[in-house]
Amino acid sequence: MNNPLAISYEDIISASEVLKDVAHYTSVLTSRQADEQANAKLFFKCENLQRTGAFKFRGAFNAMRKLSADQQRRGVVAFSSGNHAQAVALAGRILNTPVRIVMPHDAPAMKMVATRAYGAEVIIYQRGVEDREAVAHRLVQEHALSLIPPFDHPDVIAGQGTAAKELFDSVGQLDYLFISTGGGGLLAGSAIAAAKLSPQCMVVGVEPEAGNDVQQSLRSGKPLRISVPNTIADGAQTQQVGQLTFPILQAHVKNIVTVTDAQLCRQMRFFAERMKMIVEPTGCLAAAAVMHKVVDVAGARVGVIVSGGNVDVDVFSSLAGTVKSFSKN
Amino acid sequence: MNNPLAISYEDIISASEVLKDVAHYTSVLTSRQADEQANAKLFFKCENLQRTGAFKFRGAFNAMRKLSADQQRRGVVAFSSGNHAQAVALAGRILNTPVRIVMPHDAPAMKMVATRAYGAEVIIYQRGVEDREAVAHRLVQEHALSLIPPFDHPDVIAGQGTAAKELFDSVGQLDYLFISTGGGGLLAGSAIAAAKLSPQCMVVGVEPEAGNDVQQSLRSGKPLRISVPNTIADGAQTQQVGQLTFPILQAHVKNIVTVTDAQLCRQMRFFAERMKMIVEPTGCLAAAAVMHKVVDVAGARVGVIVSGGNVDVDVFSSLAGTVKSFSKN
Repeated sequence: MNNPLAISYEDIISASEVLKDVAHYTSVLTSRQADEQANAKLFFKCENLQRTGAFKFRGAFNAMRKLSADQQRRGVVAFSSGNHAQAVALAGRILNTPVRIVMPHDAPAMKMVATRAYGAEVIIYQRGVEDREAVAHRLVQEHALSLIPPFDHPDVIAGQGTAAKELFDSVGQLDYLFISTGGGGLLAGSAIAAAKLSPQCMVVGVEPEAGNDVQQSLRSGKPLRISVPNTIADGAQTQQVGQLTFPILQAHVKNIVTVTDAQLCRQMRFFAERMKMIVEPTGCLAAAAVMHKVVDVAGARVGVIVSGGNVDVDVFSSLAGTVKSFSKN
Repeated sequence: MNNPLAISYEDIISASEVLKDVAHYTSVLTSRQADEQANAKLFFKCENLQRTGAFKFRGAFNAMRKLSADQQRRGVVAFSSGNHAQAVALAGRILNTPVRIVMPHDAPAMKMVATRAYGAEVIIYQRGVEDREAVAHRLVQEHALSLIPPFDHPDVIAGQGTAAKELFDSVGQLDYLFISTGGGGLLAGSAIAAAKLSPQCMVVGVEPEAGNDVQQSLRSGKPLRISVPNTIADGAQTQQVGQLTFPILQAHVKNIVTVTDAQLCRQMRFFAERMKMIVEPTGCLAAAAVMHKVVDVAGARVGVIVSGGNVDVDVFSSLAGTVKSFSKN
């Protein structure tokens, strides 16, 4: 019988080989103060220190590296104004593959500049007038390009799973693994890795409270679509879980929890003050759930994937500056 | 003939053994963007990710661990309102050694709170009325305490040298090693490690422009005393190089350079934006010299010790927010 899921652990091993010497094998940091706050032993896998500042590079590079030589030569297209755009752009630069990124006309200028700095061509579309997927698919057809989706692609999911694989390889078995959740690519890949490398580990997805579509979808047994959630976690503003990621989550993820924007701000401040790291709001989702004890992990060994660090310094200052860090109790 | 210097490489090996399983073996990070800016291959040894947020923990713990059981039981005293205070306080907590920290009455409340949070007793003196060294020495005599100086002590110097040892062990030989310089403890320890592990490596100390006492002292051949320098690099506001560190610098360090506060702010912003790290102004000294090409390191393999990350989030925001990051050229 074929595996009904999009990927298997062997795909993650294969992705690890592809990413060797290209992606950073990111640091796993620990913090006595975090442990005291959570009353557990925490291992932070720091994908904010990954190339392009987020785990997205893993999936994008793996997917693009696995295109045929001809496909690589013709080029790729992606629609994103966030971390996936920069990931695809850098992968294209490394692989010498032309990259077009479709962004709305009102995307932050800085994001466009950053994406162009990696050598990608930015294609602007009128948000509200045009549909970005239609724009991308037209490019795919006109120029015979390959579309690199942000999460719903087997090679993307397998690539994201390498972060969790590295974490288990570094620290051994865990009782819990907390994962920031948007479209479910990182969560699905991580769950496959955990099922193999630490079968007793409970994998927990964490969404922003305002956008808990994955939580709702798993409860109702089918992918639900929500309106664009109003949250500072801009990397988790997805409206619907993926068609490929959803069955993996159904098979392997028992628990999705949510955190508030205020909790994300407090976590950003903690990371800056105590662990000397800049983490973007979306990258704080998993840690915020643990540190605010949304799940009781007392006494456990807990993995936390810090998924990204791309936040403007001034935005960071205004968000982290509004809150107090964790008090002693 | 005895070695006329305070420490030898064997003392650093010994300190490494003492610190094993107690100090973090900190990450070495790389950045393509930093390499492009500096036109060299840079290796950042991240002591901002060290326990207590700075390399100071290495020297303090090594010195305190090497006290006799009786000395440890009686306790230690240190005068500092900065990273050394927290380092000694944490070391005392781990070793179950009572710690008294002498601070001026006008030290930031946050520093006092942080030091007390590690279990140390804070002794306040009236700055301008009392002399802090006199206060500390009185405590030493009254309670038979051991004084743990911030840099001018063989075991402190040897402990600081372990950071450079780890860097060479991780990345091999280097052409240059840049070190933030205050009293010269980290610089002296690093120079001893470099002389053994990478003899061709040029070790470069970096001071704030406003407080270049080590540069002046090496030029004139004797330790000079300056007034308290006006710089945001509060960890390098030392007025005079150490009696033990100076001969080591004379023997091993050919080059001391300086950077401005504006360059430190720009480096803070770069670390935050591009490498997702919070680095305090003093911790930016070494990197700022490389990234602003104060020394021409084109094509070289360059080690940079990022010495600390203890800066208030609001202070960080105001400093890093005032400047632009490095432009493309």
